[in-house]
Amino acid sequence: MSLPTLTTGEYSLVYNLLSLAIAAMLGSFVFYVQARSQLHAKYRPAMVLSSLVVAIAGYHYFRIFEGWQSAYVLKNGSYEASGVPFNDAYRYVDWLLTVPLLCAELIAVLALSAGVRGKMMGKLVVAAVLMIALGYPGELSGESGPRVMWAVFSTIPFTYILYVLWVQLGKVAKDNDPKVKKLLDQTRWLLLATWGFYPIAYALPLLKISGASATVGVQVGYSIADILAKCGYGFMIYAIARAKMDAAGETATDVATTPALQVVS
Amino acid sequence: MSLPTLTTGEYSLVYNLLSLAIAAMLGSFVFYVQARSQLHAKYRPAMVLSSLVVAIAGYHYFRIFEGWQSAYVLKNGSYEASGVPFNDAYRYVDWLLTVPLLCAELIAVLALSAGVRGKMMGKLVVAAVLMIALGYPGELSGESGPRVMWAVFSTIPFTYILYVLWVQLGKVAKDNDPKVKKLLDQTRWLLLATWGFYPIAYALPLLKISGASATVGVQVGYSIADILAKCGYGFMIYAIARAKMDAAGETATDVATTPALQVVS
Repeated sequence: MSLPTLTTGEYSLVYNLLSLAIAAMLGSFVFYVQARSQLHAKYRPAMVLSSLVVAIAGYHYFRIFEGWQSAYVLKNGSYEASGVPFNDAYRYVDWLLTVPLLCAELIAVLALSAGVRGKMMGKLVVAAVLMIALGYPGELSGESGPRVMWAVFSTIPFTYILYVLWVQLGKVAKDNDPKVKKLLDQTRWLLLATWGFYPIAYALPLLKISGASATVGVQVGYSIADILAKCGYGFMIYAIARAKMDAAGETATDVATTPALQVVS
Repeated sequence: MSLPTLTTGEYSLVYNLLSLAIAAMLGSFVFYVQARSQLHAKYRPAMVLSSLVVAIAGYHYFRIFEGWQSAYVLKNGSYEASGVPFNDAYRYVDWLLTVPLLCAELIAVLALSAGVRGKMMGKLVVAAVLMIALGYPGELSGESGPRVMWAVFSTIPFTYILYVLWVQLGKVAKDNDPKVKKLLDQTRWLLLATWGFYPIAYALPLLKISGASATVGVQVGYSIADILAKCGYGFMIYAIARAKMDAAGETATDVATTPALQVVS
């Protein structure tokens, strides 16, 4: 898409939100790396995965931030496209790496049996790759027709992932103590709410709103969704692990009795 | 606000103070990360939170420093505005993330019951967000009228946060041994003194002092306040934890018996 001229307020909103995302990813990274040792060994893999997610996302936000700066120049009090293309692909490369990791995070903290875990992870990775590969051509297109078509294709695996996680969280929640159950239910809704942001941000350019509002809306929407779905979600995962430890009377120094980090099995 | 022309002395004062802030945040970060293992497990979350605060603040000071550099050019022996806007929002984004964390730090070291902790944290986060969201429009405004108005609005949640922390510290101080009590009292005053800097710095442009003095004063005031309220405060938190350990005869290797890091409850 070609970049519309923005007011200083519009430009700054995206600029500051991208910077906020960098700071949030950095802060979360520092937290997850240290929080790991506060958890029982069997929950540590979930923190390792969380730290991976925000490290990768932090890198991409740094690039997007720089990209945003070079894509615009200040001329007579408003921001015009500088001619340097703004690279949308960073977000898609980021999701390609982080969405499977986010799924793995949840699977790790749920501590499912190795068999269930492996099968589920395989299906989710395939769906995540399809979702992102199918969404990207639409993102690149400035026209409504192709954007709608790819949006529809991409929404199929998107819905599938959300469905699997939703059902799985519900299933596991039932067998847990009240506090863990409450957190799992909250995570379910957090997942639905934050993931719900992405298709909305994606659809903005289709809603007949002006070029500037669409461009700003997409960036703001994706950034807020990423902060909640990555940082906020990681904190929920941590809280779930703590609550499960409390319920089972476990401490951080207990040794793992189950295989720890098993992403592929 | 448009940037006034500065003497080399004025420009350098801000420049060097911003760099000092980066160094202070970095040094504190290295300390907190390592100091964690010197503390009993139940106090470690407070150090983790301290390290988050200075990591996030360090990032923002790095951006502010670079922003300051690009906002000015040296011409005929004095520093004139280069035309590149100086982004005030970094400080506000920083406070948005760090003020709730600073509150959580104190709550973590006081080791209150889970119920009290959760409720207090909820109120403080809401107040912090309000304080920052209400202060920012005034900061952007170059005119006195709106700056005063937003200052008044923002001061309400600001006073509330300080009041809650002040009362809570006083309450907890009473039940502790003399050394811990002394440190808690000192923290109370440190909090009041450093937080008191912010409204003063904010008000400077209103005090009929020249543009240059106001700009320099705001940057110097905020930077000193941030160094004391983040780095100095984190060291006090560490000292409190050590004193509490001494009073209870605990060592760093003792296993936590209470839920450790519980950000969400």
